[in-house]
Amino acid sequence: MTTTNLSHSRSVPTRRRFLGHLGALGGSSLVMTALSSWDLMAGPAGTRPVLSGRPRNAKVLILGAGISGLALGYELSRLGYDFHVLEARDRVGGLVWTVHGGTTHTEIGGEHQQCTWDEGLWLNAGAWRIPYTHTGVLNYCKELGVPLEIFVNEADASYFYREGADAGSLANTRVRLGEVKADIVGQVNELLVKAIDQHSLDLPLTAEDQERLVGFLVAQGYLDRKDRRYRAFADRGPGDPYQLSALLKAGFGDRLRSISPRDGITTAPMFHPVGGMEQIPKAFARAIGPSRITFNAEVHSVRQDDHAATVAYRDTKTGRTRTLTADYVVVCLPLSIVAGLDCQLSAEMMAAVRATTYSNSAKAGLGMKRRFWEEDDQIFGGHLYSNLPIGEFSYPSTGYFSRKGVLLGFYLHSGPAVTLMDRPIGERVEHVLTHSSKVHPQMRREFESAYCVWWRKVEYSRGGFANAAPLARRAQLSKFENRLLIGSAATAPHSEPDWQEGAIAAAWQALTSLHEHAMRS
Amino acid sequence: MTTTNLSHSRSVPTRRRFLGHLGALGGSSLVMTALSSWDLMAGPAGTRPVLSGRPRNAKVLILGAGISGLALGYELSRLGYDFHVLEARDRVGGLVWTVHGGTTHTEIGGEHQQCTWDEGLWLNAGAWRIPYTHTGVLNYCKELGVPLEIFVNEADASYFYREGADAGSLANTRVRLGEVKADIVGQVNELLVKAIDQHSLDLPLTAEDQERLVGFLVAQGYLDRKDRRYRAFADRGPGDPYQLSALLKAGFGDRLRSISPRDGITTAPMFHPVGGMEQIPKAFARAIGPSRITFNAEVHSVRQDDHAATVAYRDTKTGRTRTLTADYVVVCLPLSIVAGLDCQLSAEMMAAVRATTYSNSAKAGLGMKRRFWEEDDQIFGGHLYSNLPIGEFSYPSTGYFSRKGVLLGFYLHSGPAVTLMDRPIGERVEHVLTHSSKVHPQMRREFESAYCVWWRKVEYSRGGFANAAPLARRAQLSKFENRLLIGSAATAPHSEPDWQEGAIAAAWQALTSLHEHAMRS
Repeated sequence: MTTTNLSHSRSVPTRRRFLGHLGALGGSSLVMTALSSWDLMAGPAGTRPVLSGRPRNAKVLILGAGISGLALGYELSRLGYDFHVLEARDRVGGLVWTVHGGTTHTEIGGEHQQCTWDEGLWLNAGAWRIPYTHTGVLNYCKELGVPLEIFVNEADASYFYREGADAGSLANTRVRLGEVKADIVGQVNELLVKAIDQHSLDLPLTAEDQERLVGFLVAQGYLDRKDRRYRAFADRGPGDPYQLSALLKAGFGDRLRSISPRDGITTAPMFHPVGGMEQIPKAFARAIGPSRITFNAEVHSVRQDDHAATVAYRDTKTGRTRTLTADYVVVCLPLSIVAGLDCQLSAEMMAAVRATTYSNSAKAGLGMKRRFWEEDDQIFGGHLYSNLPIGEFSYPSTGYFSRKGVLLGFYLHSGPAVTLMDRPIGERVEHVLTHSSKVHPQMRREFESAYCVWWRKVEYSRGGFANAAPLARRAQLSKFENRLLIGSAATAPHSEPDWQEGAIAAAWQALTSLHEHAMRS
Repeated sequence: MTTTNLSHSRSVPTRRRFLGHLGALGGSSLVMTALSSWDLMAGPAGTRPVLSGRPRNAKVLILGAGISGLALGYELSRLGYDFHVLEARDRVGGLVWTVHGGTTHTEIGGEHQQCTWDEGLWLNAGAWRIPYTHTGVLNYCKELGVPLEIFVNEADASYFYREGADAGSLANTRVRLGEVKADIVGQVNELLVKAIDQHSLDLPLTAEDQERLVGFLVAQGYLDRKDRRYRAFADRGPGDPYQLSALLKAGFGDRLRSISPRDGITTAPMFHPVGGMEQIPKAFARAIGPSRITFNAEVHSVRQDDHAATVAYRDTKTGRTRTLTADYVVVCLPLSIVAGLDCQLSAEMMAAVRATTYSNSAKAGLGMKRRFWEEDDQIFGGHLYSNLPIGEFSYPSTGYFSRKGVLLGFYLHSGPAVTLMDRPIGERVEHVLTHSSKVHPQMRREFESAYCVWWRKVEYSRGGFANAAPLARRAQLSKFENRLLIGSAATAPHSEPDWQEGAIAAAWQALTSLHEHAMRS
């Protein structure tokens, strides 16, 4: 499988590729079965391993209580393994981090922040949305009883806003997605109906079918039933239609699709846990049991010989160093952390570890006194589509019609605008308020307080999500080295490592590998 | 304002009509202001009355703790009135009724049912969705702290299914909305691109704009970038595209709109309270205070003279009759109930009361052991679009990825299929299972237990929602008759009475009328 660095389109294996795979394995009849049945649909993480047997003498240490470490621990507990998880932070979840009132952290070499939002307000600083195709993580939610709600990833009320001459006559104008849809489809349909009426189209349709087609075009794009012309109408909202050419020039048509892609960040529907993404790692931790996880355990070295592996860690509360010995150690830390660890892995493995890169993701959550985007603009979830230097700007898909809310004011994981993160927190917030005010003049008046997370400067993360690595490197990363195995999301075998689903895939791969190894020993 | 009986499209005043209204009132400059600002957007219930002053000697009795009675009581409590609510049932909400495990009722002249669904499972037997435009009820949710979640009213995963020769070659075939969208738009765009390439269209576009248009058409309908032809693609799902003519013939294009209507049952987004619609009346009741509501109070007569009004009611628990006297009585009961009441209203008023009709709505909730529509079909909320004699068949917009769920197996409020409701409960359920199994063969295997509500046979309702009455009749119904006033949803002045929003509008109208009267006295 080829991979590319896809920070925006983030392809995961498509159903087509999945079917092609089946065809290669089982011949065309297997593909035919798959084509006629949705039951076979495996998520991008593949199929959860079905394992049996309990190895003798197989004590496992898992380093890191992010999603991959927790999923691995959970599966090991179901198999009856003796295992323990070491986590450097005082919380589970890793990159799955829900910021709320009371949350604090100090940026590496930077400022200390304390979140002051009211109770019930939160921002998912890392993972924040789950496409319905991610059956690995979603089935864990079902199994662990994590309530989910819809994550609104696209809404007709969303604004487009483009600065600069490239946007043509619509520069610096906020135009709603619904207006774009109505005006483009309306005007295109008008052209098409005219052509059909003038018989200037070579249509492979009977007269009756042509009439039905015209009926459809009139209804879909809201052409006037009498003169079949497109003009402003109530459902579009107030104002005159924008010119087709102006909309196309501004690039607003680029987001329109007749259906949403099945894989990637625009897949619909998407979900997120009620109360924040942290509900998933918390549910894993509850299922595993508190005695299985040691917090504030900063791992310093991992040594191994033919008989055992030994982990040395510092208890950050007491400052004391401790060691633990086990039959196996599964490293579920970001490879950016592993790269700096005194770790008895081969030179090939460490080279693969160091070659793996992580996104430069940053988010800024803006606590707002009033949900003006709902009250004044009728926007409920979704995003602002702009070329402003704030990346993704999003409205909360939760707490509708409540009093306050948290906007995602800035989300970027690459590009020059990320350099903003080098500035003091106050300047970052100022930057976001200045630019977002161009679309929402209410921003400054309603702003209460912000919380900024720049993952590169978050201790124990030192980066955002893993960028997809070439298959050869992932194959290297997933190799067992005597008593050591890497289970981080970056090793995900046939899924993107930049989603929780990738962490699940990596955990499943490590689990299978570990169990086979342990059963043989 | 003209009104029509719109059981399906249920028009409410459109923004256009609202703007026309403004224009008539304030001249064109007022319309211009409204056109450039969304802030002015009043919900279909109009604007909440802003009243002041507290009348001396104004004790009010409200008959009925449905939404109109509760909203009126809530506003009266804010104004400091002395008031009391009489409710015949043992619950608040009237037509806002959430059925869950333990719910019981006996149909008038019919069977007794007891709901046996697991905890956490429910069906909104009456009101079940709130368009974002219904700011009256939504603002009460905000004020009273009722958490809301998205009600998924349209989803690409939904199936179309048509029986009968009219559906042509697609009869008895389940086709997804997303497939319909992809195949129709894809094929239409292919035709259009071909025409543009052949210069057979008289386009008011520059060559550059034409290129952009082609680019848009290719991307939107997923034409192949090279040969610009439409064919099956991964995002569409497995299988070959359906013929454009077959889709149009089957009528599947009828549901496609470039944007959703702003008013009516397909308005997006829509919402519903977390935990069931009953959360709204319950929140009103909490705010009013339990001492203000007497349950099991079956009103038998309302008498009045120039000094006072007297209500006689039977306590259905003890069988004893009691009377209460007040300065005013506001009747917030269904007019189908008022019609049979010994009520001292004028002949004109009683004629208007008796002329008002109510829908023949019925719903059947099917408790299912497994959410097969999610697990097997990737359907998350939304409806089945069929011509099966089961009316609306819908998937829950809540509890995603949990174990069990309740399907709305039958929802009709008119037409011949409602006669099914004359059959025993067992036969109704059998009918629904038989027909829905054509689309979902899993139905019988996963079925657990049903609960049927036929509003015509529900005591104290004797009908579903009020059908919109002509303006003259509504004007009559909203008249004060000495010490008596009707505040039921059927009197809603400029909104449809078949939504909670209509009940709010009616309550506001009654409130204003009552307060003015009381302040004058």
